[in-house]
Order: sequence, then structure tokens, then C-alpha cells
Amino acid sequence: MKSSQTKQRLLQTGLDLISVHGLDGVTLGQLATVSGMSKSGLFAHFRSKEQLQIDLLASLSEMALRVIIEPAMQAPSGVRRIRSVMEHWRGWWRRAGLTGGCPIASALFELDDIDGDLRNHAARMERQWREQLGMIVAEAKSLGQISADTDVDQFVWEMCANYLGHHVSSRFLRSVEADTHARLAMDALIDRHLPRLTQADTSLTANSGEASA
Amino acid sequence: MKSSQTKQRLLQTGLDLISVHGLDGVTLGQLATVSGMSKSGLFAHFRSKEQLQIDLLASLSEMALRVIIEPAMQAPSGVRRIRSVMEHWRGWWRRAGLTGGCPIASALFELDDIDGDLRNHAARMERQWREQLGMIVAEAKSLGQISADTDVDQFVWEMCANYLGHHVSSRFLRSVEADTHARLAMDALIDRHLPRLTQADTSLTANSGEASA
Repeated sequence: MKSSQTKQRLLQTGLDLISVHGLDGVTLGQLATVSGMSKSGLFAHFRSKEQLQIDLLASLSEMALRVIIEPAMQAPSGVRRIRSVMEHWRGWWRRAGLTGGCPIASALFELDDIDGDLRNHAARMERQWREQLGMIVAEAKSLGQISADTDVDQFVWEMCANYLGHHVSSRFLRSVEADTHARLAMDALIDRHLPRLTQADTSLTANSGEASA
Repeated sequence: MKSSQTKQRLLQTGLDLISVHGLDGVTLGQLATVSGMSKSGLFAHFRSKEQLQIDLLASLSEMALRVIIEPAMQAPSGVRRIRSVMEHWRGWWRRAGLTGGCPIASALFELDDIDGDLRNHAARMERQWREQLGMIVAEAKSLGQISADTDVDQFVWEMCANYLGHHVSSRFLRSVEADTHARLAMDALIDRHLPRLTQADTSLTANSGEASA
């Protein structure tokens, strides 16, 4: 097996471990045991636990692009793409083959008190993710599908809160209502940002392309 | 020092540990080291790591009552109390003397894949917390300050998502905008649930006590 294939296989095993036990729940020793490799063999691929964790975060980032952003880009730009990204975001880890919930969401709580490369890497990832969501929201705004007053950062902040709220209610509370609650909150967020017609501009009414679904 | 005082002191030390390292980051051995007690001395107070973790969760629950619910009950019932509970909830762990963020929020992600007494205890705590919030929202509804159509569970779900979103942006992203984002989202949630006057009932207009602030 080629070195890059071995590394891929090790990363997949590591992802399963962190999905269940959190980022701190993976060690080189544990990965060696699970994958049946020697610890020195592992060192050829990961110089340290921290390097392994950073590589795992990078893999997660690629997976999230593949199972959330790419399919959402198939939806027409605007409000339908905003909805699509939320639908693909919820439970994305399951479609990415992970069994224990979203390791990124856990890391946001696990790493909050830790300084260093791992935290910096995770914070950069989270900021990039929010920028990506911001582009989708800004596009809906530029198309006139959401109001010109929309504060894109605020909108994205609420999308992220919605995701976290859903993760806790579906994964931790195991609530059968989790999806319904998340969708209702998302509908309300979009609804609040639909272009409003004032008395003055009812005469200029344009069909903004998408009404509240 | 009396046994109950010793136990209180041990719990406080344990709370500092879990606030920074998560619930899994506290062990009897570590607590013994930090508090300068023998491990057998500790066993007089906690029979197992799991018992220690459950006792720590119970302490957190009492603290949350003291620094969130009790001060919020000083506000007039209704929408002002809903706002007050959110204001006291954000950053409550700091006022409770904890240094590393909300250990309950972390536990919601840490314990999602674990079965057993600890998880059951945490899930019961979280459900009781949501019930407590639900009572405050239901009271605002019965006072006519929020709409009679309000789905109390949905409202509480969005309060919880708001809290989680704030925790990540303030603690993990260290965003100076975290409070502003959380308040704007909360204002919008309340606004959406203010009693709406329809054409038919403008003649019955009642002052609902509190307008959007």
C-alpha cells in the first residue's frame, strides 16, 4: 500500500475516534493499536499528536466541503441555496461516514481554553467556514432575495447558532423534534430578512424571486 | 475542617478543572494531586470518577439557579424576565467563579455518545433547565406579552441555540461582537412573538404590557 493511501486510512480511523471521543480522545498510541501499526510506523506520517489533530481537522474541512458546500452549490443561488446549505449541514457527519456527531462542533467547546497551533488552526477553519456561509448570504442579498439592510454577519451568526442548537437537541437530547425546531427557526430567520415593501415602494414592486417557502 | 466543608472545597476544585478540561478532564487522582489529599481520603467523598462527575453536575445546577434564575426572578414576569434570564445566562460561569467557560455546554457535546448514569444525569439536568425556561416563556404568554400562538418549546429551543451560538463566538472565536449578535437575535425572537393585531381585532386592542425594547 502506498504511503499516501496508508495515511488516508489512518486519518479515516482517527476521524472515527475523534467523532466519538473528541479531538483530545485520539493519541498516536491509540491510533497505532486500532490500526495495527507500530508507533514508530505512525511517526512516518504524523510527527506528533498535535500534527495528527491538525491533519484530522484539515480532513474534516475537506469532507465538509464535499458533503455540505458542493451539494448546496447545485441549488440556485439566493435563498434556496441558503436553505440547501442548512439542510446539508445538519447531520453532515453521518453522510461523511462518521458515527459520533460533528467533531468540529465538539472542538469549538473543547479547544476554547487551549492556546497554540491546534486552536489557531481550528479558529481559522471556523472563520473560513463562516466566510463561506457569508458569501452565500451576500449573494442572496445582491440578488434582492433578502433585504438590502441585512447584516450578513448577524445572519451567519444565527445560522451557526441554529446548527449548534440542532446538534445538541438531536445528538444529546435525542429529540425527535430537532429537525422541525431547526427548520422553523431557519424559516423565521429568512422570513425576517425578506425584502419588505414600504408604502413608498409598493409601486416599484419587483418579484424578488423567492417568497418564504 | 468538617467533612461537608472538605467535600465543598473538593467540588470547587473539581469545577475549576472541568471548566477548563471538560467533564472527562477530571479524575480522582488529579483531584487528589491538586487538593493535596490522598486518593483514599478522596474515596470517603466520592466512590468513583463517575460519582464525582455527577456531584459536579449537581453543583453546577445549583450554581446556575443562583446566578441565573434567582436574579432573573427579580425582573417583572413576562418579556422583561425572558430578557433578564438571557442576560444572566450569558457568561454565568464567570460570575460563578469558573474560569474556563460553561462546563454544561461542553458536556452537551462531550457526552453525546456515552451511555450510562452520567449522561442520564446530564440529560435530566438539561431537560429541567429547558422546563424552567419554558415556565418563564409560558408566563409571558399567559400575560399576553407574547402571542397566544407562541410555541413555547420552539421559543425555548431558540433561546438555547442563542446561548450556544454566543458561547462559541465569545469563548472560541473570542469575538468582541458576541454579545451584540446574541442580543440582536434575542430581540428578533421576542419581536417575532409579540402579539400581532389583525384587522379584525384592532378594535379590541389591549395594551400588552411590553413592546419591543
